[in-house]
Amino acid sequence: MSAAYHPSGIPPHSRAPPMLTLYDVPGHTPQPWSPNIWRVRFILNFKRLRYRTVWVEFPQVESTLASIGAPPSGLSSSGRPIYSLPVLIDPTHNPRAPKILSNPNTIAEYLESAYPARPVFPEGSRAMQTLFVHYIQEVFAKPLLPIMVPLSHQQLPGRTQEHFRGSMPAAVLSGPQREEAWKAVKYQFDFLATILDKNTGDGDGVVAMGDEVSYADFALCSILIWIQRMAAQDGWARVRTWNNGRWHRLWERCKEYMDEF
Amino acid sequence: MSAAYHPSGIPPHSRAPPMLTLYDVPGHTPQPWSPNIWRVRFILNFKRLRYRTVWVEFPQVESTLASIGAPPSGLSSSGRPIYSLPVLIDPTHNPRAPKILSNPNTIAEYLESAYPARPVFPEGSRAMQTLFVHYIQEVFAKPLLPIMVPLSHQQLPGRTQEHFRGSMPAAVLSGPQREEAWKAVKYQFDFLATILDKNTGDGDGVVAMGDEVSYADFALCSILIWIQRMAAQDGWARVRTWNNGRWHRLWERCKEYMDEF
Repeated sequence: MSAAYHPSGIPPHSRAPPMLTLYDVPGHTPQPWSPNIWRVRFILNFKRLRYRTVWVEFPQVESTLASIGAPPSGLSSSGRPIYSLPVLIDPTHNPRAPKILSNPNTIAEYLESAYPARPVFPEGSRAMQTLFVHYIQEVFAKPLLPIMVPLSHQQLPGRTQEHFRGSMPAAVLSGPQREEAWKAVKYQFDFLATILDKNTGDGDGVVAMGDEVSYADFALCSILIWIQRMAAQDGWARVRTWNNGRWHRLWERCKEYMDEF
Repeated sequence: MSAAYHPSGIPPHSRAPPMLTLYDVPGHTPQPWSPNIWRVRFILNFKRLRYRTVWVEFPQVESTLASIGAPPSGLSSSGRPIYSLPVLIDPTHNPRAPKILSNPNTIAEYLESAYPARPVFPEGSRAMQTLFVHYIQEVFAKPLLPIMVPLSHQQLPGRTQEHFRGSMPAAVLSGPQREEAWKAVKYQFDFLATILDKNTGDGDGVVAMGDEVSYADFALCSILIWIQRMAAQDGWARVRTWNNGRWHRLWERCKEYMDEF
Protein backbone atom coordinates (compact mmCIF):
# COMPACT_ATOMS: atom_id res chain seq x y z
CA MET A 1 0.00 0.00 0.00
CA SER A 2 1.53 3.25 -1.07
CA ALA A 3 0.81 6.61 0.48
CA ALA A 4 2.31 8.34 -2.52
CA TYR A 5 0.30 10.68 -4.67
CA HIS A 6 -1.52 8.88 -7.45
CA PRO A 7 -2.18 10.91 -10.60
CA SER A 8 -5.71 9.59 -11.15
CA GLY A 9 -6.72 10.72 -7.71
CA ILE A 10 -8.10 7.23 -7.09
CA PRO A 11 -6.20 5.19 -4.54
CA PRO A 12 -4.43 2.33 -6.38
CA HIS A 13 -5.62 -0.17 -3.80
CA SER A 14 -8.90 -0.39 -1.94
CA ARG A 15 -7.14 -0.53 1.41
CA ALA A 16 -5.41 2.77 0.75
CA PRO A 17 -6.88 5.46 2.97
CA PRO A 18 -9.41 7.60 1.11
CA MET A 19 -8.02 10.91 0.01
CA LEU A 20 -9.23 14.40 0.78
CA THR A 21 -10.32 16.53 -2.18
CA LEU A 22 -9.66 20.24 -2.44
CA TYR A 23 -11.58 22.27 -5.02
CA ASP A 24 -9.54 25.09 -6.52
CA VAL A 25 -9.81 27.58 -9.41
CA PRO A 26 -7.26 27.42 -12.23
CA GLY A 27 -5.19 30.41 -13.31
CA HIS A 28 -2.94 30.89 -16.34
CA THR A 29 -0.43 28.28 -15.20
CA PRO A 30 -0.94 24.92 -13.49
CA GLN A 31 0.13 26.59 -10.24
CA PRO A 32 -2.55 27.39 -7.69
CA TRP A 33 -2.77 31.11 -7.01
CA SER A 34 -5.91 31.96 -5.02
CA PRO A 35 -4.99 33.17 -1.52
CA ASN A 36 -8.12 31.85 0.24
CA ILE A 37 -7.48 28.40 -1.19
CA TRP A 38 -3.77 28.48 -0.38
CA ARG A 39 -4.71 29.04 3.24
CA VAL A 40 -6.29 25.55 3.25
CA ARG A 41 -3.61 23.95 1.04
CA PHE A 42 -0.98 25.13 3.54
CA ILE A 43 -2.81 23.36 6.36
CA LEU A 44 -3.17 20.14 4.35
CA ASN A 45 0.55 20.21 3.54
CA PHE A 46 1.58 21.17 7.07
CA LYS A 47 -0.49 18.35 8.58
CA ARG A 48 0.86 15.97 5.89
CA LEU A 49 -2.62 14.91 4.80
CA ARG A 50 -3.11 13.14 1.47
CA TYR A 51 -5.28 15.13 -0.89
CA ARG A 52 -5.89 15.82 -4.53
CA THR A 53 -6.99 19.01 -6.25
CA VAL A 54 -10.08 19.24 -8.45
CA TRP A 55 -9.99 22.28 -10.71
CA VAL A 56 -13.21 24.17 -11.31
CA GLU A 57 -13.36 27.30 -13.42
CA PHE A 58 -15.26 30.24 -11.92
CA PRO A 59 -18.34 29.91 -14.20
CA GLN A 60 -18.83 26.30 -12.99
CA VAL A 61 -18.24 26.88 -9.31
CA GLU A 62 -21.86 27.33 -8.26
CA SER A 63 -23.26 24.40 -10.28
CA THR A 64 -20.39 22.12 -9.23
CA LEU A 65 -20.88 22.91 -5.56
CA ALA A 66 -24.63 22.37 -5.91
CA SER A 67 -24.03 18.97 -7.56
CA ILE A 68 -21.85 17.75 -4.68
CA GLY A 69 -24.12 19.25 -2.02
CA ALA A 70 -21.56 21.71 -0.67
CA PRO A 71 -22.93 24.20 1.83
CA PRO A 72 -22.75 27.90 1.01
CA SER A 73 -19.59 29.60 2.30
CA GLY A 74 -21.57 32.54 3.65
CA LEU A 75 -24.50 34.85 3.06
CA SER A 76 -24.51 38.04 1.04
CA SER A 77 -25.76 41.23 2.69
CA SER A 78 -29.14 40.58 1.02
CA GLY A 79 -29.27 37.12 2.61
CA ARG A 80 -28.55 35.19 -0.60
CA PRO A 81 -26.26 32.15 -0.10
CA ILE A 82 -22.74 32.56 -1.53
CA TYR A 83 -21.08 29.54 -3.13
CA SER A 84 -17.33 29.92 -3.38
CA LEU A 85 -14.09 28.01 -3.10
CA PRO A 86 -12.27 26.52 -1.30
CA VAL A 87 -14.42 23.47 -0.71
CA LEU A 88 -12.97 20.38 0.95
CA ILE A 89 -14.35 16.85 0.87
CA ASP A 90 -13.18 14.44 3.53
CA PRO A 91 -14.40 10.85 3.10
CA THR A 92 -12.03 9.49 5.78
CA HIS A 93 -14.47 8.94 8.61
CA ASN A 94 -17.43 7.86 6.51
CA PRO A 95 -16.75 7.20 2.81
CA ARG A 96 -20.50 6.82 2.12
CA ALA A 97 -21.31 10.23 3.63
CA PRO A 98 -18.18 12.28 3.22
CA LYS A 99 -17.79 15.52 5.11
CA ILE A 100 -18.19 18.50 2.72
CA LEU A 101 -16.99 21.86 3.98
CA SER A 102 -16.72 25.36 2.59
CA ASN A 103 -15.31 28.64 3.92
CA PRO A 104 -11.56 28.61 4.67
CA ASN A 105 -11.96 29.33 8.41
CA THR A 106 -14.50 26.55 8.83
CA ILE A 107 -12.23 24.15 6.93
CA ALA A 108 -9.22 25.21 9.03
CA GLU A 109 -11.08 24.58 12.28
CA TYR A 110 -12.40 21.25 11.01
CA LEU A 111 -8.94 20.05 9.97
CA GLU A 112 -7.49 21.07 13.33
CA SER A 113 -10.18 19.14 15.21
CA ALA A 114 -10.20 16.08 12.94
CA TYR A 115 -6.40 15.93 12.58
CA PRO A 116 -5.01 17.42 15.79
CA ALA A 117 -1.42 16.30 15.17
CA ARG A 118 0.84 19.13 14.00
CA PRO A 119 -1.51 21.89 15.22
CA VAL A 120 -1.89 25.11 13.23
CA PHE A 121 -3.56 26.87 16.17
CA PRO A 122 -1.10 26.97 19.08
CA GLU A 123 -2.92 26.02 22.29
CA GLY A 124 -5.58 28.49 23.38
CA SER A 125 -4.98 30.77 20.37
CA ARG A 126 -7.95 30.05 18.07
CA ALA A 127 -9.59 33.39 18.78
CA MET A 128 -6.37 35.40 18.39
CA GLN A 129 -5.44 33.59 15.18
CA THR A 130 -8.91 34.06 13.75
CA LEU A 131 -8.85 37.79 14.47
CA PHE A 132 -5.38 38.06 12.94
CA VAL A 133 -6.59 36.35 9.75
CA HIS A 134 -9.69 38.54 9.69
CA TYR A 135 -7.43 41.58 9.91
CA ILE A 136 -5.18 40.29 7.11
CA GLN A 137 -8.19 39.78 4.87
CA GLU A 138 -10.26 42.86 5.69
CA VAL A 139 -7.68 45.53 6.44
CA PHE A 140 -4.17 44.50 5.43
CA ALA A 141 -5.02 43.06 2.00
CA LYS A 142 -7.62 45.69 1.03
CA PRO A 143 -5.27 48.10 -0.79
CA LEU A 144 -3.93 45.17 -2.82
CA LEU A 145 -7.31 44.63 -4.48
CA PRO A 146 -7.18 47.48 -7.06
CA ILE A 147 -3.78 46.17 -8.16
CA MET A 148 -4.23 42.42 -7.89
CA VAL A 149 -7.84 41.84 -8.96
CA PRO A 150 -7.44 43.22 -12.52
CA LEU A 151 -4.02 41.53 -12.84
CA SER A 152 -5.46 38.21 -11.71
CA HIS A 153 -8.49 38.62 -13.93
CA GLN A 154 -6.25 39.20 -16.97
CA GLN A 155 -4.49 35.91 -16.31
CA LEU A 156 -7.56 33.72 -15.84
CA PRO A 157 -8.79 31.36 -18.58
CA GLY A 158 -10.77 33.11 -21.33
CA ARG A 159 -14.13 31.61 -20.40
CA THR A 160 -13.73 32.88 -16.85
CA GLN A 161 -12.94 36.35 -18.13
CA GLU A 162 -16.13 36.25 -20.21
CA HIS A 163 -18.06 35.17 -17.13
CA PHE A 164 -16.88 38.14 -15.09
CA ARG A 165 -17.10 40.74 -17.87
CA GLY A 166 -18.80 43.78 -16.46
CA SER A 167 -18.56 42.79 -12.82
CA MET A 168 -14.79 43.01 -12.34
CA PRO A 169 -12.56 46.05 -12.77
CA ALA A 170 -10.93 45.58 -16.15
CA ALA A 171 -8.22 48.21 -16.05
CA VAL A 172 -4.81 47.17 -14.82
CA LEU A 173 -3.35 50.20 -13.08
CA SER A 174 -0.35 51.86 -14.66
CA GLY A 175 1.95 54.84 -14.21
CA PRO A 176 1.42 57.15 -11.22
CA GLN A 177 -1.91 55.44 -10.36
CA ARG A 178 -0.08 52.16 -9.91
CA GLU A 179 2.61 53.82 -7.80
CA GLU A 180 -0.06 55.41 -5.56
CA ALA A 181 -1.74 52.03 -5.14
CA TRP A 182 1.57 50.37 -4.20
CA LYS A 183 2.19 53.14 -1.68
CA ALA A 184 -1.07 52.26 0.09
CA VAL A 185 -0.04 48.60 0.04
CA LYS A 186 3.37 49.42 1.51
CA TYR A 187 1.75 51.40 4.32
CA GLN A 188 -0.06 48.24 5.43
CA PHE A 189 3.08 46.10 5.14
CA ASP A 190 5.08 48.66 7.15
CA PHE A 191 2.47 48.75 9.89
CA LEU A 192 2.24 44.96 10.10
CA ALA A 193 6.03 44.80 10.28
CA THR A 194 6.03 47.02 13.38
CA ILE A 195 3.46 44.67 14.94
CA LEU A 196 5.37 41.50 14.03
CA ASP A 197 8.63 43.06 15.25
CA LYS A 198 7.15 42.83 18.77
CA ASN A 199 7.95 39.13 18.65
CA THR A 200 11.67 39.65 18.19
CA GLY A 201 13.10 38.29 21.42
CA ASP A 202 9.80 36.69 22.38
CA GLY A 203 9.57 34.50 19.29
CA ASP A 204 11.67 33.84 16.22
CA GLY A 205 10.95 37.33 14.84
CA VAL A 206 9.54 36.07 11.55
CA VAL A 207 6.41 34.08 12.32
CA ALA A 208 3.31 35.66 13.89
CA MET A 209 3.39 33.68 17.11
CA GLY A 210 6.19 31.97 19.01
CA ASP A 211 8.72 30.00 16.99
CA GLU A 212 6.60 27.82 14.72
CA VAL A 213 4.40 28.71 11.75
CA SER A 214 0.68 28.84 12.46
CA TYR A 215 -2.61 29.65 10.71
CA ALA A 216 -1.80 33.38 10.84
CA ASP A 217 1.42 32.86 8.86
CA PHE A 218 -0.33 30.70 6.31
CA ALA A 219 -2.94 33.42 5.74
CA LEU A 220 -0.22 36.01 5.32
CA CYS A 221 1.98 33.88 3.09
CA SER A 222 -1.04 33.04 0.92
CA ILE A 223 -1.20 36.74 0.08
CA LEU A 224 2.51 36.69 -0.79
CA ILE A 225 1.96 33.72 -3.10
CA TRP A 226 -0.89 35.58 -4.81
CA ILE A 227 1.43 38.53 -5.41
CA GLN A 228 4.25 36.29 -6.63
CA ARG A 229 2.04 34.25 -8.99
CA MET A 230 0.06 37.13 -10.48
CA ALA A 231 2.58 40.00 -10.25
CA ALA A 232 6.04 38.47 -10.04
CA GLN A 233 7.94 41.40 -11.51
CA ASP A 234 5.99 44.44 -10.44
CA GLY A 235 4.76 42.93 -7.18
CA TRP A 236 6.81 40.27 -5.49
CA ALA A 237 10.06 41.88 -6.68
CA ARG A 238 9.07 44.94 -4.62
CA VAL A 239 7.49 43.26 -1.60
CA ARG A 240 10.29 40.79 -0.94
CA THR A 241 12.73 43.62 -0.29
CA TRP A 242 10.44 45.59 2.07
CA ASN A 243 10.99 45.69 5.84
CA ASN A 244 14.52 44.29 5.67
CA GLY A 245 13.42 41.23 3.77
CA ARG A 246 10.90 40.16 6.44
CA TRP A 247 8.39 38.89 3.85
CA HIS A 248 11.01 36.94 1.95
CA ARG A 249 12.03 35.30 5.24
CA LEU A 250 8.40 34.39 5.95
CA TRP A 251 8.17 32.87 2.47
CA GLU A 252 11.27 30.78 3.19
CA ARG A 253 9.80 29.61 6.52
CA CYS A 254 6.60 28.49 4.74
CA LYS A 255 8.29 27.05 1.65
CA GLU A 256 8.33 23.44 2.85
CA TYR A 257 4.51 23.58 3.00
CA MET A 258 4.07 24.81 -0.57
CA ASP A 259 3.53 21.39 -2.17
CA GLU A 260 0.91 21.36 -4.90
CA PHE A 261 -1.09 18.16 -5.26
CA MET B 1 9.06 48.60 56.43
CA SER B 2 5.54 48.41 55.09
CA ALA B 3 4.63 47.65 51.53
CA ALA B 4 1.11 48.96 52.08
CA TYR B 5 -0.23 51.89 50.15
CA HIS B 6 0.59 55.20 51.82
CA PRO B 7 -1.90 58.02 51.19
CA SER B 8 0.77 60.71 50.72
CA GLY B 9 2.33 58.69 47.93
CA ILE B 10 5.65 59.12 49.67
CA PRO B 11 7.07 55.96 51.16
CA PRO B 12 6.96 56.26 54.97
CA HIS B 13 10.54 55.05 55.26
CA SER B 14 13.52 55.70 53.06
CA ARG B 15 14.18 51.99 52.69
CA ALA B 16 10.71 51.41 51.26
CA PRO B 17 10.93 50.59 47.55
CA PRO B 18 10.22 53.64 45.41
CA MET B 19 6.74 53.71 43.98
CA LEU B 20 5.63 53.93 40.38
CA THR B 21 3.51 56.93 39.42
CA LEU B 22 0.65 56.77 36.96
CA TYR B 23 -0.71 60.01 35.50
CA ASP B 24 -4.45 59.92 34.89
CA VAL B 25 -7.25 62.37 34.01
CA PRO B 26 -10.08 62.94 36.52
CA GLY B 27 -13.74 62.52 35.62
CA HIS B 28 -16.87 63.45 37.57
CA THR B 29 -16.20 60.94 40.34
CA PRO B 30 -12.95 59.89 42.02
CA GLN B 31 -13.08 56.73 39.94
CA PRO B 32 -10.71 56.45 36.97
CA TRP B 33 -12.60 56.11 33.70
CA SER B 34 -10.26 56.58 30.71
CA PRO B 35 -9.88 53.30 28.79
CA ASN B 36 -6.30 53.89 27.59
CA ILE B 37 -5.20 54.54 31.16
CA TRP B 38 -7.12 51.58 32.56
CA ARG B 39 -5.14 49.37 30.19
CA VAL B 40 -1.99 50.32 32.14
CA ARG B 41 -3.67 50.30 35.58
CA PHE B 42 -4.80 46.72 34.92
CA ILE B 43 -1.20 45.68 34.26
CA LEU B 44 0.06 47.41 37.40
CA ASN B 45 -2.61 45.68 39.47
CA PHE B 46 -2.15 42.32 37.78
CA LYS B 47 1.61 42.42 38.35
CA ARG B 48 1.01 43.60 41.95
CA LEU B 49 3.25 46.64 41.54
CA ARG B 50 3.05 49.52 44.04
CA TYR B 51 1.95 52.75 42.40
CA ARG B 52 0.13 55.96 43.07
CA THR B 53 -2.05 58.02 40.73
CA VAL B 54 -1.38 61.67 39.97
CA TRP B 55 -4.44 63.41 38.56
CA VAL B 56 -3.96 65.95 35.78
CA GLU B 57 -6.87 67.71 34.13
CA PHE B 58 -6.84 67.78 30.33
CA PRO B 59 -5.87 71.48 30.02
CA GLN B 60 -2.72 70.85 32.10
CA VAL B 61 -1.64 67.60 30.44
CA GLU B 62 0.77 69.08 27.92
CA SER B 63 2.47 71.49 30.35
CA THR B 64 2.67 68.83 33.07
CA LEU B 65 4.25 66.32 30.74
CA ALA B 66 6.69 68.95 29.48
CA SER B 67 7.67 69.81 33.08
CA ILE B 68 8.53 66.19 33.92
CA GLY B 69 10.25 65.59 30.59
CA ALA B 70 7.80 62.96 29.35
CA PRO B 71 8.26 61.91 25.74
CA PRO B 72 5.43 62.47 23.27
CA SER B 73 3.07 59.50 22.96
CA GLY B 74 3.07 59.74 19.19
CA LEU B 75 3.10 62.07 16.22
CA SER B 76 0.12 63.67 14.54
CA SER B 77 -0.34 63.22 10.80
CA SER B 78 1.30 66.63 10.34
CA GLY B 79 4.34 65.46 12.30
CA ARG B 80 3.56 67.48 15.46
CA PRO B 81 4.35 65.61 18.74
CA ILE B 82 1.27 64.49 20.70
CA TYR B 83 1.39 64.65 24.50
CA SER B 84 -1.24 62.47 26.09
CA LEU B 85 -1.87 60.19 29.05
CA PRO B 86 -1.18 57.63 30.35
CA VAL B 87 2.34 58.49 31.45
CA LEU B 88 4.21 56.24 33.86
CA ILE B 89 7.22 57.12 35.97
CA ASP B 90 9.33 54.29 37.33
CA PRO B 91 12.12 55.32 39.70
CA THR B 92 12.84 51.74 40.80
CA HIS B 93 16.02 51.09 38.89
CA ASN B 94 17.49 54.56 39.16
CA PRO B 95 15.70 56.98 41.51
CA ARG B 96 17.88 59.89 40.28
CA ALA B 97 16.98 59.29 36.65
CA PRO B 98 13.56 57.64 36.71
CA LYS B 99 12.21 56.00 33.61
CA ILE B 100 9.44 58.16 32.09
CA LEU B 101 7.18 56.47 29.55
CA SER B 102 4.15 57.42 27.54
CA ASN B 103 1.87 55.53 25.12
CA PRO B 104 -0.02 52.58 26.64
CA ASN B 105 1.58 49.95 24.37
CA THR B 106 5.08 51.21 25.14
CA ILE B 107 4.29 51.20 28.87
CA ALA B 108 2.82 47.69 28.64
CA GLU B 109 5.92 46.34 26.90
CA TYR B 110 8.21 48.12 29.36
CA LEU B 111 6.35 46.71 32.39
CA GLU B 112 6.46 43.21 30.92
CA SER B 113 10.22 43.42 30.36
CA ALA B 114 11.05 45.16 33.65
CA TYR B 115 8.68 43.01 35.75
CA PRO B 116 8.43 39.67 33.95
CA ALA B 117 6.66 37.87 36.80
CA ARG B 118 2.94 37.39 36.18
CA PRO B 119 3.23 37.98 32.41
CA VAL B 120 0.46 39.80 30.54
CA PHE B 121 1.79 38.61 27.17
CA PRO B 122 1.64 34.79 27.08
CA GLU B 123 4.90 33.45 25.64
CA GLY B 124 5.47 34.32 22.01
CA SER B 125 2.22 36.31 21.75
CA ARG B 126 3.38 39.94 21.81
CA ALA B 127 2.61 40.49 18.13
CA MET B 128 -0.80 38.80 18.28
CA GLN B 129 -1.77 40.66 21.45
CA THR B 130 -0.66 43.97 19.99
CA LEU B 131 -2.70 43.43 16.84
CA PHE B 132 -5.72 42.43 18.91
CA VAL B 133 -5.45 45.63 20.96
CA HIS B 134 -4.98 47.68 17.79
CA TYR B 135 -8.17 46.12 16.43
CA ILE B 136 -10.07 46.84 19.66
CA GLN B 137 -9.00 50.47 19.52
CA GLU B 138 -9.29 51.19 15.80
CA VAL B 139 -12.18 49.01 14.67
CA PHE B 140 -14.15 47.55 17.57
CA ALA B 141 -14.39 50.74 19.67
CA LYS B 142 -14.93 53.17 16.76
CA PRO B 143 -18.78 53.13 16.76
CA LEU B 144 -18.72 53.82 20.52
CA LEU B 145 -17.14 57.23 19.98
CA PRO B 146 -20.26 59.18 18.87
CA ILE B 147 -22.04 57.87 21.97
CA MET B 148 -19.27 57.90 24.56
CA VAL B 149 -17.23 60.98 23.70
CA PRO B 150 -20.07 63.52 24.28
CA LEU B 151 -21.24 61.58 27.37
CA SER B 152 -17.72 61.57 28.80
CA HIS B 153 -17.21 65.22 27.93
CA GLN B 154 -20.41 66.16 29.78
CA GLN B 155 -19.10 64.49 32.92
CA LEU B 156 -15.61 66.02 32.93
CA PRO B 157 -14.68 68.89 35.28
CA GLY B 158 -15.94 72.30 34.08
CA ARG B 159 -12.48 73.66 33.22
CA THR B 160 -11.82 70.68 31.01
CA GLN B 161 -15.10 71.19 29.22
CA GLU B 162 -14.12 74.81 28.57
CA HIS B 163 -10.78 73.62 27.22
CA PHE B 164 -12.40 71.32 24.69
CA ARG B 165 -15.26 73.64 23.69
CA GLY B 166 -15.45 73.67 19.92
CA SER B 167 -13.20 70.71 19.31
CA MET B 168 -15.38 67.95 20.76
CA PRO B 169 -18.87 66.94 19.66
CA ALA B 170 -21.19 68.55 22.20
CA ALA B 171 -24.46 66.79 21.46
CA VAL B 172 -25.27 63.67 23.42
CA LEU B 173 -27.23 61.43 21.06
CA SER B 174 -30.87 60.79 21.84
CA GLY B 175 -33.91 59.02 20.46
CA PRO B 176 -33.58 57.08 17.19
CA GLN B 177 -30.08 58.50 16.57
CA ARG B 178 -28.89 56.95 19.82
CA GLU B 179 -30.54 53.63 18.96
CA GLU B 180 -28.85 53.63 15.53
CA ALA B 181 -25.49 54.31 17.18
CA TRP B 182 -25.99 51.47 19.67
CA LYS B 183 -26.90 49.16 16.79
CA ALA B 184 -23.51 49.85 15.19
CA VAL B 185 -21.85 49.17 18.55
CA LYS B 186 -23.74 45.91 18.95
CA TYR B 187 -22.62 44.76 15.50
CA GLN B 188 -19.01 45.02 16.65
CA PHE B 189 -19.70 43.22 19.93
CA ASP B 190 -21.55 40.45 18.09
CA PHE B 191 -18.70 39.97 15.65
CA LEU B 192 -16.07 39.90 18.39
CA ALA B 193 -18.19 37.37 20.28
CA THR B 194 -18.10 34.99 17.28
CA ILE B 195 -14.30 35.37 17.25
CA LEU B 196 -13.90 34.83 21.01
CA ASP B 197 -16.27 31.85 20.86
CA LYS B 198 -13.54 30.05 18.89
CA ASN B 199 -11.73 29.59 22.19
CA THR B 200 -14.56 27.60 23.77
CA GLY B 201 -13.00 24.19 24.21
CA ASP B 202 -9.52 25.49 23.45
CA GLY B 203 -9.50 27.99 26.33
CA ASP B 204 -11.87 29.05 29.09
CA GLY B 205 -14.26 30.61 26.57
CA VAL B 206 -14.20 34.05 28.20
CA VAL B 207 -10.67 35.40 27.95
CA ALA B 208 -9.03 36.17 24.59
CA MET B 209 -6.26 33.58 24.85
CA GLY B 210 -5.97 30.32 26.75
CA ASP B 211 -7.24 30.27 30.33
CA GLU B 212 -5.69 33.33 31.94
CA VAL B 213 -6.34 37.03 31.37
CA SER B 214 -3.82 38.83 29.18
CA TYR B 215 -3.18 42.27 27.69
CA ALA B 216 -5.96 41.72 25.14
CA ASP B 217 -8.54 41.21 27.89
CA PHE B 218 -7.36 44.26 29.76
CA ALA B 219 -7.76 46.40 26.63
CA LEU B 220 -11.26 45.03 26.09
CA CYS B 221 -12.33 45.33 29.72
CA SER B 222 -11.01 48.92 29.80
CA ILE B 223 -13.66 49.73 27.20
CA LEU B 224 -16.31 48.06 29.36
CA ILE B 225 -15.21 50.15 32.35
CA TRP B 226 -15.48 53.29 30.23
CA ILE B 227 -19.04 52.34 29.30
CA GLN B 228 -19.93 51.47 32.90
CA ARG B 229 -18.46 54.66 34.38
CA MET B 230 -19.78 57.11 31.80
CA ALA B 231 -23.01 55.38 30.68
CA ALA B 232 -24.06 53.01 33.45
CA GLN B 233 -27.77 52.97 32.69
CA ASP B 234 -27.97 53.44 28.95
CA GLY B 235 -24.69 51.67 28.21
CA TRP B 236 -23.46 49.02 30.58
CA ALA B 237 -27.01 47.90 31.36
CA ARG B 238 -27.32 47.00 27.66
CA VAL B 239 -23.86 45.63 26.99
CA ARG B 240 -23.67 43.31 30.01
CA THR B 241 -26.64 41.30 28.70
CA TRP B 242 -25.34 40.96 25.12
CA ASN B 243 -23.91 37.69 23.76
CA ASN B 244 -25.25 35.56 26.62
CA GLY B 245 -23.57 37.67 29.24
CA ARG B 246 -20.07 37.20 27.79
CA TRP B 247 -19.01 40.76 28.60
CA HIS B 248 -20.28 40.56 32.16
CA ARG B 249 -18.28 37.35 32.57
CA LEU B 250 -15.16 39.08 31.25
CA TRP B 251 -15.75 41.90 33.75
CA GLU B 252 -15.96 39.35 36.56
CA ARG B 253 -12.71 37.68 35.39
CA CYS B 254 -10.93 41.07 35.44
CA LYS B 255 -12.55 42.37 38.64
CA GLU B 256 -9.73 41.38 40.96
CA TYR B 257 -7.41 43.66 38.97
CA MET B 258 -9.64 46.73 39.24
CA ASP B 259 -7.95 48.25 42.31
CA GLU B 260 -7.64 52.01 42.17
CA PHE B 261 -4.61 53.50 43.88
